Amino acid sequence: MKYSIVTISRQFGSGGRSIGKKLAERLGFTYYDKELVKQVSLATGFAPDYIEEKGEYAQSRSRLSYLFTTTGTAGVMNGMSAADYLYTMQRKVILDIAEKGNCVIVGRCADYILRERDDVLNAFIHAPKEYRAERIVRLYGESEQTPFKRLDDKDGKRRVNYEHFTGRTWGASENYDISVNTEAIGEDACVELLYRIVLGK
Amino acid sequence: MKYSIVTISRQFGSGGRSIGKKLAERLGFTYYDKELVKQVSLATGFAPDYIEEKGEYAQSRSRLSYLFTTTGTAGVMNGMSAADYLYTMQRKVILDIAEKGNCVIVGRCADYILRERDDVLNAFIHAPKEYRAERIVRLYGESEQTPFKRLDDKDGKRRVNYEHFTGRTWGASENYDISVNTEAIGEDACVELLYRIVLGK
Repeated sequence: MKYSIVTISRQFGSGGRSIGKKLAERLGFTYYDKELVKQVSLATGFAPDYIEEKGEYAQSRSRLSYLFTTTGTAGVMNGMSAADYLYTMQRKVILDIAEKGNCVIVGRCADYILRERDDVLNAFIHAPKEYRAERIVRLYGESEQTPFKRLDDKDGKRRVNYEHFTGRTWGASENYDISVNTEAIGEDACVELLYRIVLGK
Repeated sequence: MKYSIVTISRQFGSGGRSIGKKLAERLGFTYYDKELVKQVSLATGFAPDYIEEKGEYAQSRSRLSYLFTTTGTAGVMNGMSAADYLYTMQRKVILDIAEKGNCVIVGRCADYILRERDDVLNAFIHAPKEYRAERIVRLYGESEQTPFKRLDDKDGKRRVNYEHFTGRTWGASENYDISVNTEAIGEDACVELLYRIVLGK
């Protein structure tokens, strides 16, 4: 096995979670998404819903208003904003998970957090907006916002969150070992090619 | 066959040309790099060396000085700067080549130029700086500049050129169907995975 950990970063609606899940099954790896939230909840005392909502999503595209908002809504802990505290605890949980190896971790800046390890494959999953808009309506149903607005909103928040904590550009090829467009490659083919890379064949 | 054309964009020293060449051989596709320069030379009357130098490389990281410099050194043709004229002619040659199909085209904004076609796979090849620095010294020898300076210089010019003509961010994952880090995946494994994607298997 060439890699023992896979991190999946993804645009909203691109199928990244689904690819991560299938890949973990295929490899016999543990898939960390809800399970990670549970562990962070135990470590922080924050409710899982709160972690799910705040663990990857900054409040706004504007870094400044993001900082004001998080400080404003959730207060300050140990001299840190709630967002910074949550990041610190998430980071700790991710480092512990990585020690055990054989896992797929979705989102939460895991690529950056595990950058010192050389057994980690970092993947970024993306797709054109039309493809993702159709997919989120099919999977999650309609909502008050248009699907394009939902995509912009979620991705905007993920971007601000990622850039705030890592100082890197979200979605820049050079942060990842492999980036794929799900529409062009196909979801199952993405799983297959990641599987082969992890196995080194 | 799922795709009949592959475009390869690449960071300097990443092995993108070598991957493109091997992929073309493997697929029985025509590999366009020097051959493209020859065709542009025939169409424009510019010397191949001039096209090689200017066809992908703006003069400076600063867009403004880039425009001043190219206009200053090579004058204006049909109301266009030499750089814009060269781009226009390169674009024409690339569109003609694409009509024939079954080809691999390296660089020269081909991903953007062929964006209306749905038989094109767009790949971006990159690698960490240390890997590329070692590789260019091994392949091209030492020069007066440090290898890191050479990387920054070439990539800076490619970036400005790409962004000037396409309005897109060079190296952003979402411009490409697949982006790979040669060091993490391995050069031959990159050829193999692109080969499989082109064949749709």
